[in-house]
Amino acid sequence: MDVIEVIVAKRDSGELSTGQIDWVIDAYTRGVVADEQMSSLAMAILLNGMNRREIADWTQAMIRSGERMDWSALDRPTADKHSTGGVGDKITLPLAPLVAACGAYVPQLSGRGLGHTGGTLDKLESIPGWRASLSNDEMLAVLREAGAVVCAAGSGLAPADKKLYALRDVTGTVESIPLIASSIMSKKIAEGTGSLVLDVKVGSGAFMKTVERARELAETMVALGTDAGVRTVALLTAMDRPLGRAVGNALEVEESVEVLAGGGPSDVVELTVRLAREMLEAAGIAGGKDPAEALKDGSAMDAWRRMIAAQGGDPDAPLPRAAETTTVAAPASGVLTRLDAYAVGLAAWRLGAGRARKEDPVSFGAGIVLHAKPGDEVRAGEPLMTLHADEPERFGRALAALEGGYEVGAAGQDLLPLVIDRITA
Amino acid sequence: MDVIEVIVAKRDSGELSTGQIDWVIDAYTRGVVADEQMSSLAMAILLNGMNRREIADWTQAMIRSGERMDWSALDRPTADKHSTGGVGDKITLPLAPLVAACGAYVPQLSGRGLGHTGGTLDKLESIPGWRASLSNDEMLAVLREAGAVVCAAGSGLAPADKKLYALRDVTGTVESIPLIASSIMSKKIAEGTGSLVLDVKVGSGAFMKTVERARELAETMVALGTDAGVRTVALLTAMDRPLGRAVGNALEVEESVEVLAGGGPSDVVELTVRLAREMLEAAGIAGGKDPAEALKDGSAMDAWRRMIAAQGGDPDAPLPRAAETTTVAAPASGVLTRLDAYAVGLAAWRLGAGRARKEDPVSFGAGIVLHAKPGDEVRAGEPLMTLHADEPERFGRALAALEGGYEVGAAGQDLLPLVIDRITA
Repeated sequence: MDVIEVIVAKRDSGELSTGQIDWVIDAYTRGVVADEQMSSLAMAILLNGMNRREIADWTQAMIRSGERMDWSALDRPTADKHSTGGVGDKITLPLAPLVAACGAYVPQLSGRGLGHTGGTLDKLESIPGWRASLSNDEMLAVLREAGAVVCAAGSGLAPADKKLYALRDVTGTVESIPLIASSIMSKKIAEGTGSLVLDVKVGSGAFMKTVERARELAETMVALGTDAGVRTVALLTAMDRPLGRAVGNALEVEESVEVLAGGGPSDVVELTVRLAREMLEAAGIAGGKDPAEALKDGSAMDAWRRMIAAQGGDPDAPLPRAAETTTVAAPASGVLTRLDAYAVGLAAWRLGAGRARKEDPVSFGAGIVLHAKPGDEVRAGEPLMTLHADEPERFGRALAALEGGYEVGAAGQDLLPLVIDRITA
Repeated sequence: MDVIEVIVAKRDSGELSTGQIDWVIDAYTRGVVADEQMSSLAMAILLNGMNRREIADWTQAMIRSGERMDWSALDRPTADKHSTGGVGDKITLPLAPLVAACGAYVPQLSGRGLGHTGGTLDKLESIPGWRASLSNDEMLAVLREAGAVVCAAGSGLAPADKKLYALRDVTGTVESIPLIASSIMSKKIAEGTGSLVLDVKVGSGAFMKTVERARELAETMVALGTDAGVRTVALLTAMDRPLGRAVGNALEVEESVEVLAGGGPSDVVELTVRLAREMLEAAGIAGGKDPAEALKDGSAMDAWRRMIAAQGGDPDAPLPRAAETTTVAAPASGVLTRLDAYAVGLAAWRLGAGRARKEDPVSFGAGIVLHAKPGDEVRAGEPLMTLHADEPERFGRALAALEGGYEVGAAGQDLLPLVIDRITA
């Protein structure tokens, strides 16, 4: 087969055959198709699209490029959640132990952050001693011990996706629904979960800026999961403003622990409980303990402590804190009418919470704590948010990112509902 | 500047600024922008286009990536011709010395063939001793001696184009009018010619399959040349059937010498004379010797012999001949109604006249001699063409390429006129 024929077919708006897709993914993984060839193909896919059959073939080819995990030896159903990423989205942290406490196993492979959205592994790594890299046997042991495990995907899982994702990241080919859907679903299907709940974020702080695009991505992923035998459901949820009050690695762990202790911001609690119920339903677990109850009775917190400890972390150790803080004061008295998720995410990133390149370290203590959320009343001069950074020279560019990102006025503006829609097969 | 921003701007159908274009071409030449980034940008340009201002900026940036030659010390005007490439297109060989014999200097930088169209340098290299690589001083000496020089572009001329062309060749991004136009014109403008005649081929054997696409390419290139101060005119000419009767390196040199001796196929003579008149007019040379006359009186042949000898070649040496031949017989008696240029080009390529990869050698003797052209009467069983190859095992795949590529019938089909149109600024 000739890679140029495959590229030209998609460039000229043709449909790629199953054989072409199988060949090009395998040849790219083996290095026979070069990066510069895959990147022109990725751009052609981004601009000319793929139909559902092509996306399914592309996903299956990426799954076949590596190993496929199998949890059938476990005595309870498995459930997982994937979020397309947002600002302040720490939901996995309280959610995984919560669902475990309600009777499902949660084997979650997660990622690191790049750009303005944080990564779950970066957040958990702010807990002293906790480690993200586990062997398959260690994953199984943690699952049996705590009911939930959150760790890094090994290099054997969908290696084609790993290579392609790194390439798309530097070639302007990230924002393609077929490529995003197949990337997420190849990893989740290879991970071996029996059921999957997708949290597709919508708004300025998300990859999908509009409900229409988010719905298309959700429908594509639900179809891929269902066809592969994974019970899959998706929620479209709001990312026009940050989720919760904490943005940044250790700051978000702190907020997650508050939720597990029965407190925490109402939007984080509401979304965590809703996603937990969806996961239990998708896993076929009915009539057990309700997630709202498991947050109150301490069973979710117990699962969290077991999960952290089983991965080497000390759940009682003090979390890292940034050395410097500064506050942003409300410019007027009134209602906080707008607090843009992207502006806050970008500011937190510039404070050191995120990384510009894969090799960069993150600052665990850096980030932003919000003292008001859209709809809240504020008074002129009182703090709207506190910025945390290890080096005070980071504040300038972070404050610049926030400029124009919030507004105090007379009446609230329309916000997206926290849960916009639910997509099923 | 950030390369991803540039890629994303074009991906999303935006217009690239002069600053963005200057930066990306310079950074790519220096290796700061990687091949995989340039290839996704090239695909975005191919699919979303560039406007005239962007194409002009892109061309100027590629010219500035290297040296620009200067022939102002010469005492007569300079003229050059560029063909977009076709099957049996050996016109440069008789044309350059012919125009020199009529009073202009012809400093022509030329290329090697890739795929089914041959390269001028490959043809000339079949002459024993002739060499394509000259320093700038040697080029000037050959020009003064013979009035014409045909040689390889040095690495200092538009290096950005050299790098980008090699990349496009392996990434399915060749067929873009903005990228083709800027590639050709950056080299021709950097070459320093005062006037330029473009021969834009149309038909199955050409890159441009339709008159509309060829016209768009011609108009784009004429505008680029004119804006850069080069008097530029373009002809759209037929490439639905091969040009002349010989296809292959030494075979085409032989046919070119026939033309210089006052004979040769009528289409080759007609196009050579027409292009020579256009070049003399563009160069501002009026009232001198007419090209048709210079073919008859031996002055063009004299210039050819001086040009070949000045580059180390022996104009009297016997040319290489392939060891094996086979003929294709007419399947019926009647009129040859069709002889597809692409089929003949592909067959000649498979016989060894062309190369699949840049590193491959060509066979100088390989190729095809046509015994009939469309419109000619043929008799069943008489030879339609003779195939030449060094190894007889090449005949099978060459004959397969010719299958369906010719037809003998009762009446001629419509052929494109040899010169379809003339495009000026």
